[in-house]
Amino acid sequence: MTGSLVIVGLGPGPGHWIAPEASAALEAASDVVGYQPYLDRVTERAGQRRHGSDNRVEIRRARHALVMAAEGRRVAVVSGGDPGVFAMAAVIFEAIEVGEPCWRALDVTVIPGISAMQAAAARLGAPLGQDFCAISLSDNLKAWDVVERRLRAAADGDFVIALFNPASKARPEKIHQAFRLLRGCKAATIPVAFARAIGWPDERIVLTTLGEADPAIADMSTLILIGSSETRFVDRPRGSPWLLTPRTYGAGR
Amino acid sequence: MTGSLVIVGLGPGPGHWIAPEASAALEAASDVVGYQPYLDRVTERAGQRRHGSDNRVEIRRARHALVMAAEGRRVAVVSGGDPGVFAMAAVIFEAIEVGEPCWRALDVTVIPGISAMQAAAARLGAPLGQDFCAISLSDNLKAWDVVERRLRAAADGDFVIALFNPASKARPEKIHQAFRLLRGCKAATIPVAFARAIGWPDERIVLTTLGEADPAIADMSTLILIGSSETRFVDRPRGSPWLLTPRTYGAGR
Repeated sequence: MTGSLVIVGLGPGPGHWIAPEASAALEAASDVVGYQPYLDRVTERAGQRRHGSDNRVEIRRARHALVMAAEGRRVAVVSGGDPGVFAMAAVIFEAIEVGEPCWRALDVTVIPGISAMQAAAARLGAPLGQDFCAISLSDNLKAWDVVERRLRAAADGDFVIALFNPASKARPEKIHQAFRLLRGCKAATIPVAFARAIGWPDERIVLTTLGEADPAIADMSTLILIGSSETRFVDRPRGSPWLLTPRTYGAGR
Repeated sequence: MTGSLVIVGLGPGPGHWIAPEASAALEAASDVVGYQPYLDRVTERAGQRRHGSDNRVEIRRARHALVMAAEGRRVAVVSGGDPGVFAMAAVIFEAIEVGEPCWRALDVTVIPGISAMQAAAARLGAPLGQDFCAISLSDNLKAWDVVERRLRAAADGDFVIALFNPASKARPEKIHQAFRLLRGCKAATIPVAFARAIGWPDERIVLTTLGEADPAIADMSTLILIGSSETRFVDRPRGSPWLLTPRTYGAGR
């Protein structure tokens, strides 16, 4: 079997965040597979086949990519952000786990990318300067009580919390439930940032506090960062304040 | 004031993980500041001044960079991995917070990079496919009881756990304490990976379980990943198994 499958992270937003290793893998691929808006971000190369698909058919897309790789093609599956963080890498290995035994012999590589959490943090200052956790609010694949258990644990540990997939049209009330829970266990003054579409022309950042945040402004392109008890704003004369979680913990108490 | 300061993530290991935005910022800088081994990874450019320093003088390095930026220089501070994750971004904003008032008017930009956690995850398969947290085991700047509180919370939430800075010569027993604590709250069969120097010629990966892991093999170049109750090995005919935390939670129970 001479085919291969590479799972490539495009980063969030524009091309200047794509690692050279990722660009080289896309250039070398015979077939590029992915959600159509991600494919549209990849420069077209003569002779390369493209297989765009809808966002909701991730497992079918993974199986299609694996079938082509098993036929000897050099397949690249594109993912937004980092394929390892709530994205296509898990989908591919889930498909391998329950799929054709020969797929386990394939040459499969994951190329990391910058996640939306990191791009948002960079825009904001240094909100992830201390221990943090990342939680997806989607309850498509896990029960909502698992989400609540993790939000509570994250508050107990006083982690900075990054919320991925905060809102969906099918379940608009979930983000409100999450904020109600967090308001019950964290101070109202804790800084919160809504970072939407970082790197794109319609990028929008809203800085607020846990007590004053309006969770309804989050959509599926929004990454929400909720501070620890140490996170604070650093004011500046022009522009929004920076957000800082210092490395030192408990110094002021 | 026309100076600027850009905090640049080099990613872990080789140049093929450095984002084009980071390379462009380094090319444009009049002065490059950083820990000497990171500076050595940056291509020299004629006319550019370099300011290498020791690893232990982070705040002094930050202040030096800010002073030069305030003098009108275009300063780049380099950081391994992602400057936002346990790295130089927090140091710079801490220095601004307590430093010269004019520093708050400076043009300060953070350019994200791929963190060691993500490079390790990519090599291993998809261990971060579900909710995870990142904890630094260093107790230089926070009390050890904060580390223990966070380890316990991470176990309570059944997060995948990424441990940064797992070992130091000054405190070799801390990593053993952390493993003892985690063994008290998580199953012995949970997969654990030690990922050392990912991307470098001396890269080394050890796959084991929480019950069988020998924490003594971790050094300061090691990133440790500890699975959730759902994390598992996916065997393959040649090579080490992949590590997978599936997106679906609780399906088998």
